Amino acid sequence: TEAGETIRATLFPGDGIGPEIAESVKQVFKVAGVPIEWEEHYVGTEVDPRTESFLTWESLESVRRNKVGLKGPMATPIGKGHRSLNLTLRKELGLYANVRPCNSLPGYKTRYDDVNLVTIRENTEGEYSGLEHQVVRGVVESLKIITRQASLRVAEYAFHYAKTNGRERVSAIHKANIMRKTDGLFLKCCREVAEKYPEITYEEVIIDNCCMTLVKNPGMFDVLVMPNLYGDIISDLCAGLIGGLGLTPSCNIGEGGICLAEAVHGSAPDISGKNLANPTALMLSAVMMLRHLQFNNQAERIHNAILQTIAEGKYRTADLGGKSSTSDYTKAVCDHI
Amino acid sequence: TEAGETIRATLFPGDGIGPEIAESVKQVFKVAGVPIEWEEHYVGTEVDPRTESFLTWESLESVRRNKVGLKGPMATPIGKGHRSLNLTLRKELGLYANVRPCNSLPGYKTRYDDVNLVTIRENTEGEYSGLEHQVVRGVVESLKIITRQASLRVAEYAFHYAKTNGRERVSAIHKANIMRKTDGLFLKCCREVAEKYPEITYEEVIIDNCCMTLVKNPGMFDVLVMPNLYGDIISDLCAGLIGGLGLTPSCNIGEGGICLAEAVHGSAPDISGKNLANPTALMLSAVMMLRHLQFNNQAERIHNAILQTIAEGKYRTADLGGKSSTSDYTKAVCDHI
Ligand SMILES: CC(C)[C@H](C(=O)O)[C@@H](O)C(=O)O
Ligand SMILES: CC(C)[C@H](C(=O)O)[C@@H](O)C(=O)O
Repeated sequence: TEAGETIRATLFPGDGIGPEIAESVKQVFKVAGVPIEWEEHYVGTEVDPRTESFLTWESLESVRRNKVGLKGPMATPIGKGHRSLNLTLRKELGLYANVRPCNSLPGYKTRYDDVNLVTIRENTEGEYSGLEHQVVRGVVESLKIITRQASLRVAEYAFHYAKTNGRERVSAIHKANIMRKTDGLFLKCCREVAEKYPEITYEEVIIDNCCMTLVKNPGMFDVLVMPNLYGDIISDLCAGLIGGLGLTPSCNIGEGGICLAEAVHGSAPDISGKNLANPTALMLSAVMMLRHLQFNNQAERIHNAILQTIAEGKYRTADLGGKSSTSDYTKAVCDHI
Repeated sequence: TEAGETIRATLFPGDGIGPEIAESVKQVFKVAGVPIEWEEHYVGTEVDPRTESFLTWESLESVRRNKVGLKGPMATPIGKGHRSLNLTLRKELGLYANVRPCNSLPGYKTRYDDVNLVTIRENTEGEYSGLEHQVVRGVVESLKIITRQASLRVAEYAFHYAKTNGRERVSAIHKANIMRKTDGLFLKCCREVAEKYPEITYEEVIIDNCCMTLVKNPGMFDVLVMPNLYGDIISDLCAGLIGGLGLTPSCNIGEGGICLAEAVHGSAPDISGKNLANPTALMLSAVMMLRHLQFNNQAERIHNAILQTIAEGKYRTADLGGKSSTSDYTKAVCDHI
């Protein structure tokens, strides 16, 4: 990114509290002088036949063109004949890796104060194949699909991430003692990639043992890479260690270098429109997006401002036990920039 | 069980530390006056063609005949042409439910002091079907099988357990938002059974959210029932909350009323034969076996003796940060009976 250049990025404010927390990000970006021009896209009110979902074709095109975006929570409307919004995004944009750094927040006390890890989840296949059928009445099966291509791709990403982010170890999480072929292939791919990164320690950890170790001693882990469902489970477990999804950023890496940062919490319809939502996860996700764009200076300043505001504890939203409104908390972050 | 009667029970001391910790249980039973006569069976040194595993046919017959047993850790010998010992036991004895009570131990401090829940795991199917194959080079699949029969059976067990153990709530853990048919069938069966237990509250919790809630606030849960792999993951996570597998009992319920209690930790070959192992998980599992046999008096006395010994903290094995040998700790428990 050249100095002075303005970057176009797609913004999905999403539903429920989405627009409010997106507004917080916009304010923070303005104060930090981030040269980003947003292309805003809302979830449509009807199914778009070109995407078979409530996501508009134009919104997907926007991400493909800009290669960078930020996404708030999206609740998939109930009903048949269309696809889940989140899964459609992953599929259509080839978002193959979901990356979630998970760090204890100084000043926000949980049972753990030493969490400093990153989960990297394969985001396109595995248990999420959608291939299920009834074999006979009362007997149903679902297919877990693991491919060499997707496993190598996410493993490559994980090791590259570890190397470029000063991380020392990659742990591949699996259940290959039971699923020898599927998780076995995943491990084989991780081992192949590990060979190319002799400076990164590589280990394999069985998922049940991994979860036990995470709750006993999360400091044992650094970067974790895993198939889709294990990533779903473990990334939420890790979020719980530091306080929940309202505090954990995430970013999806897609085909052609797409980076779609995303707050993974829900749309919280109960508090939507009430100026009560916590914008932290979306702000921290936006920081990941800035780092991806190498706007490192602004990323750092915003990140520090968020950490300071939380550490001081004067302005906190209700989910963190505080009394601040979304806008007061946002203003406090802006003041710290 | 009539007064004065002696019960025959099968004992698999298992490998590694197994025989030492089994010895502890025998001593404790003797001191408490438990009228049990053990039929001891070791894992064979060769594959038994009748079981296709290192488990002897006679040992399985012993459990089938006695309908009650206790099992230490068993390490499956490496090599081909035979089946995993644990999986063979589950399959051959139809051990359809794995039950693990998980309670904070007074005096043994972890990050949690309010854990009081029971995980009930479907133990025969799901992701453990063993059905996997390569579709084309670089593409492998594994089948998760959910049946109405096995789901109803474990759900029945879970609600029955809740009712007879004074529990108030059953939570079915699932990922039916993604695996609509398989986990959907599991939930459908749980709902059907729930109808018959109006006095028990029933809820459904998505696995990722469940794991997050468990690490934030495990007191939210009471009885959890779930398909095989989720049970594998969550039961170990819960064990981690209270200190690990060395402290958590388990019991497998099988066809025809079999109850095979089991310490689920490993065989710890590094410390085997050194009088260092912690026999607590096997002792607590033995207590579950006694409760199953309605030897409630002895069960209670042994259970209290274990809890007291741990709470006092004078005699603890190395894994709990203590300096006691297996035999000193065992003696302390015996003294408390
Ligand atoms: C909403 C749901 C489909 C989704 C998933 O399972 O991937 C969510 O849990 C997540 O982690 O983004
Ligand atoms: C050893 C392994 C096959 C087993 C399982 O996955 O079921 C273990 O983790 C358990 O929980 O008993």
